[in-house]
Amino acid sequence: MTIEVNQRSYKLPSHPTVVVCIDGCEPDYFAQAVAAGDMPWLKHTLHDDTALIADCVIPSFTNPNNLSIVTGAPPSVHGICGNYLFDVESGTEVMMNDPKWLRAPSILAALSKAGKRCAVITAKDKLRKLLGHGMQGGICFSSEKSDAVTMEENGIADVLGLVGRPVPDVYSAELSEFVFAAGVQLMRQQRPDFMYLSTTDYIQHKHAPGTPGANAFYAMMDGYLAELDELGCVIVLTADHGMNAKTRMDAKPDVIYLQDLLDGWLGAAATRVILPITDPYVVHHGALGSFATVYLPAGTDDQALCDRLLKQPGIELALPRAEAAERFELPADRIGDIVIVSERSTVLGTSAARHDLTALEVPLRSHGGVSEQRVPLIMNRKAPGLDPLRRWRNFDAFELALNHGQ
Amino acid sequence: MTIEVNQRSYKLPSHPTVVVCIDGCEPDYFAQAVAAGDMPWLKHTLHDDTALIADCVIPSFTNPNNLSIVTGAPPSVHGICGNYLFDVESGTEVMMNDPKWLRAPSILAALSKAGKRCAVITAKDKLRKLLGHGMQGGICFSSEKSDAVTMEENGIADVLGLVGRPVPDVYSAELSEFVFAAGVQLMRQQRPDFMYLSTTDYIQHKHAPGTPGANAFYAMMDGYLAELDELGCVIVLTADHGMNAKTRMDAKPDVIYLQDLLDGWLGAAATRVILPITDPYVVHHGALGSFATVYLPAGTDDQALCDRLLKQPGIELALPRAEAAERFELPADRIGDIVIVSERSTVLGTSAARHDLTALEVPLRSHGGVSEQRVPLIMNRKAPGLDPLRRWRNFDAFELALNHGQ
Repeated sequence: MTIEVNQRSYKLPSHPTVVVCIDGCEPDYFAQAVAAGDMPWLKHTLHDDTALIADCVIPSFTNPNNLSIVTGAPPSVHGICGNYLFDVESGTEVMMNDPKWLRAPSILAALSKAGKRCAVITAKDKLRKLLGHGMQGGICFSSEKSDAVTMEENGIADVLGLVGRPVPDVYSAELSEFVFAAGVQLMRQQRPDFMYLSTTDYIQHKHAPGTPGANAFYAMMDGYLAELDELGCVIVLTADHGMNAKTRMDAKPDVIYLQDLLDGWLGAAATRVILPITDPYVVHHGALGSFATVYLPAGTDDQALCDRLLKQPGIELALPRAEAAERFELPADRIGDIVIVSERSTVLGTSAARHDLTALEVPLRSHGGVSEQRVPLIMNRKAPGLDPLRRWRNFDAFELALNHGQ
Repeated sequence: MTIEVNQRSYKLPSHPTVVVCIDGCEPDYFAQAVAAGDMPWLKHTLHDDTALIADCVIPSFTNPNNLSIVTGAPPSVHGICGNYLFDVESGTEVMMNDPKWLRAPSILAALSKAGKRCAVITAKDKLRKLLGHGMQGGICFSSEKSDAVTMEENGIADVLGLVGRPVPDVYSAELSEFVFAAGVQLMRQQRPDFMYLSTTDYIQHKHAPGTPGANAFYAMMDGYLAELDELGCVIVLTADHGMNAKTRMDAKPDVIYLQDLLDGWLGAAATRVILPITDPYVVHHGALGSFATVYLPAGTDDQALCDRLLKQPGIELALPRAEAAERFELPADRIGDIVIVSERSTVLGTSAARHDLTALEVPLRSHGGVSEQRVPLIMNRKAPGLDPLRRWRNFDAFELALNHGQ
């Protein structure tokens, strides 16, 4: 039996199935942890089963990619093109956490409507409502608010009791570990048909691949994945985006302050620079990522401005709206007049005065650009006959799990 | 007084001047070592003086870039387009270490002819003859062969006595440290007018930025640079190329074996794949880099083959000869019919059977592609008025030192 969601078909799961979105999982995190002997389960899985590299959606931020994974579709379909946007109707800048922004149903909702018991566990609460939207019954909660769950709102009453751990700090590795610990307990006790786990990139923002801090995190994850495997789960691992060092040689963030630059070129506040990375949790990245969109005054020559921006060192792409929407499969009505992507080592800011970088304890690591587009797509099942030349996307994770992994 | 070399003019040095090419110095090595407190001299220099990011030449290998730095010109001018090439005249594959391949004079040669005392110290001997070619008098030796110098051949008689160290192993951090130790002693004792120091990337092939092995190497370097600074030297730092992890998720090298691929497409040995990274010292990279050139049988549709190659995951560019020569400023008569560049995480091999990867002790790190093009360009002097939009190249190092640093 199959379901159709956003013009793609999925078989219903015959085995308990878990899709994991590891926030900020640049593939080299796996490679270095495997080399260090810290991921024995993954090493075995990569050798025996299915190991692909996929492209995430641009902007390579958390919300657009998590929504792409659960809808099996790009942002042009589901509508979530950032963590944050300029709402042209109300003339205000707002978080994109409300389900009202969603334009497409999720595969999770369709599975639940087809009678499958689904569970969604996220690290941060900002994603919970978007991911759980449309699910009938089922469980949906965040580590962050795991002490405030109710049967009515979350489909589960006592998460802390289930996991046997306290609520983790929102800036901690434990926030992600809690997701796995809860997932394993849920699988043991309730054996849902389908589970979606989504971590946070606190560790990846601070620790480069192969460093002790990163390897310890991946070793932790490997243990829980082995447990889920032992419980008979089909497991697919992917990521919302990669992660790169974004520093100057003096270890300070390598920032192009776009609002300051454009104020200088076109007049103070003539333009409005939007950084879709912006979210309430900015301590580890200072709202600095490699993607920005800009609203311009009427009459601006967008292409000429893009050409001028492209001459700035550190700018990788500057595209007028229509071209950006087509190239990155974005909803044209929710991005500015131009889209700007910076190079691997460079991030985009608004005005220097508006970024508080005092909380950055280590050299900046961030994401958002094309340079963070490569992510893992791994399954603990063999899948013979996959097209080796296909451009895999992280939002093929459900297809891989349901159509090739059962 | 100025000299003209390869259509550029340089002022003669009025202070002792040192240009350092740090092999494989991805800029993040500096950032992470500065952040760790391991490079106090560099931190101070970056803050007070001149800190630029430059592009190296492609292929991002050692020989082409060292020769570009000392000639102030791209490979299309100086002729050295790899460590290794297919000599169409003799029909053999040969190392490009012999000065007969040089098509342009070096700035070092011109400085020596203008009466300036020059010294060149390289880590590996493979570069020595190319770098010293045309110098009148002066000193030119390698750490590797530092026990075999003669006044006649090297312009110096007792390097081991000068440095007070034994000959280092060719695969060691000490091979590069010897370059700095010798440079400092030479500057103390003979005070040459101009010195070119060129290290080896043994450490960078094994250790990622910010790791203890990398930071210790950069701390060592910082100490010697501070000594040269105290001796009153104008110092310019640059690199021949960057360095990136080139692994699959299972930590094995992520290789496209081009000869095997093309043998399958066009017939066994119909094509000849040349890897210009090839040199006698392959232990740390297994002759695997991100650049290859291929000689094709007569009648092949080069563009169609390039288009087909571009569809392979991991291939970033595939260009017919003329286009590659123009884009990368390469000598068209010394490259194959097509040029192939792989992506940041991928390397190119010939046939699997021809690469011995058993000596790779750690996950592969390598270079050769556009992904390793960004390098530092730093000077311990202020240089006001430099064009911020100029595309700096590593082969502007002598211009920076001589025309802006004196």
